Amino acid sequence: MNRIEMALNKSTEGGKHIITKRENIYYLTGFMPSSLSILILEDEPFLLVNEMDREAATENSTVEVRTFSRMGDLREVLADTEDLVVEPSMTVGLMKSLGIGSFEVDDVVSELRMIKDRDEIGNIRRALQIAEEALKELEIEGSESSIAAKLEYLMRLEGSEGASFDTVVTSGARSSIPHATPTGEPAGSPLLLDWGAVYKGYHSDTTRTAAWTEREQEILEIVVEAKKEGLRTIKDGVRACEVDRAVRSVMEDYGYLENFIHSTGHGVGLEVHEKPSLAPGDKTVIRKGMVVTVEPGIYLPGEFGVRMEDMVVVGNGAEVINRLPDYNWI
Amino acid sequence: MNRIEMALNKSTEGGKHIITKRENIYYLTGFMPSSLSILILEDEPFLLVNEMDREAATENSTVEVRTFSRMGDLREVLADTEDLVVEPSMTVGLMKSLGIGSFEVDDVVSELRMIKDRDEIGNIRRALQIAEEALKELEIEGSESSIAAKLEYLMRLEGSEGASFDTVVTSGARSSIPHATPTGEPAGSPLLLDWGAVYKGYHSDTTRTAAWTEREQEILEIVVEAKKEGLRTIKDGVRACEVDRAVRSVMEDYGYLENFIHSTGHGVGLEVHEKPSLAPGDKTVIRKGMVVTVEPGIYLPGEFGVRMEDMVVVGNGAEVINRLPDYNWI
Repeated sequence: MNRIEMALNKSTEGGKHIITKRENIYYLTGFMPSSLSILILEDEPFLLVNEMDREAATENSTVEVRTFSRMGDLREVLADTEDLVVEPSMTVGLMKSLGIGSFEVDDVVSELRMIKDRDEIGNIRRALQIAEEALKELEIEGSESSIAAKLEYLMRLEGSEGASFDTVVTSGARSSIPHATPTGEPAGSPLLLDWGAVYKGYHSDTTRTAAWTEREQEILEIVVEAKKEGLRTIKDGVRACEVDRAVRSVMEDYGYLENFIHSTGHGVGLEVHEKPSLAPGDKTVIRKGMVVTVEPGIYLPGEFGVRMEDMVVVGNGAEVINRLPDYNWI
Repeated sequence: MNRIEMALNKSTEGGKHIITKRENIYYLTGFMPSSLSILILEDEPFLLVNEMDREAATENSTVEVRTFSRMGDLREVLADTEDLVVEPSMTVGLMKSLGIGSFEVDDVVSELRMIKDRDEIGNIRRALQIAEEALKELEIEGSESSIAAKLEYLMRLEGSEGASFDTVVTSGARSSIPHATPTGEPAGSPLLLDWGAVYKGYHSDTTRTAAWTEREQEILEIVVEAKKEGLRTIKDGVRACEVDRAVRSVMEDYGYLENFIHSTGHGVGLEVHEKPSLAPGDKTVIRKGMVVTVEPGIYLPGEFGVRMEDMVVVGNGAEVINRLPDYNWI
């Protein structure tokens, strides 16, 4: 059964599915759109692309390709269709342009994507390997932003298609903001790096913090312990929120629960953040083939922040696919 | 009058505006969200951010900051509100999470953003200057993807906050796809570069093509002529679609109308693509203070493609802010 059949099988919605999320179109057809494209899932699925994407779509897509030149063409295709099913990522603006009034919402493709096949896991491993090799070659010197620039460049030279997300290089008091933007200030202590590579469209996502003062090292050890507790909890059959709870309980033991201000982790694949979310509200059952991050952090406003993030392939237990150690990785 | 007052004044919708587009939140408050944030526009506007963004928001936002920890908190804020107004970029999924059933759609902030003030134009000029300086330092050698990586790195060293978009370096037959992804193949003829830098959140976007064969040079000259015709047409008071028509008429004269498969240009600012669109359907009146691209291209499938793109600040006429010449820029 191919992925399109699996998606239609798995969906609880009976109508005609309109796929517009580019990663989902790529997942189902092999073609990654560079502009608005719509995949219509029905017995004879077809892809609507504009003229700009025709050549690439024809070359790569496993389903029939048709072209459109204006929104009116798309409205015509969808006219007279009742029971339309759209994705949660569909925007109100596109809906209006397409003349869609009533619809159901289903996220079946993103759910399907949670379980990776062997090729996908291979691509993710390769992306992570590229990111870690680049780090090994990196000299930590100069400003936060020049370090970030150098790390992204080294990843490209190692074979990355780009940075998986805006690389975080932050230090000192600035590290107490989880997604701090690198500054022109020189890197200090602690030093937090959050970076990732992309290989064949698949992402990696890893964080390491180096600490030099006693106080920072104490916090770092708690974060590492919380990460290990999370990793120990992950296995086929456990719920995403249970992993989050395990990590949070370590934070609570040390009195830092309120300084852990984000979720424990997330799925990684064609997007750097995808389902499931290792967070209090997510009851998704973790299954073999999922690839997720575990990334606890402690943020002390005005002082500093520490975060550590590993990537995990779920098998019978959790296989950490990082090679970098927790300490002494610089 | 501040930007929030201008937005409320300009809006034709009377209800409570919910701003979720991150660039629009930044434009109105000075704070760029790193995760879901919602700006509520009413007499006493306030910003809802999660704990992760609290520190940065408090530091930068000109409006009151409140925090939320779960979607339920947001639903409570919006409950009992009739006449909600959302942006076209709002997704169906977020709407569902927020429990929004009925709503109006308005894009007033994106429309306001079309006219840039002096500071904004300064930032865009600086972004373009960074991009052009980086190109001057670039040695064209090796594979397309290594050239792209090097150019992005040089832009970072020159002060760019990142690449404005995935840098296009493409050559030979591959250049016939407008948004071609750089490959591991060596750069050949023609050579098309489409690249941009980011300065204080503002983008640049420029394309140059170098051609070595007679046939390629002939096409390049037509594209340059079309670009010049577009530039000549731009002035305060003309419609976006008229600029597009002027460019298309040059293509038609030479028999390449059907090989110009995208729109003529777009606004540039906090996003690399923003309103207006210099395209057949866009009747927006071009006004002083707009910054737009003019980027005609001719794409010959199986042969090659050529595109040339300048950035323009609209005053009484069109001031091209690029310093790079059309020819001999390598």
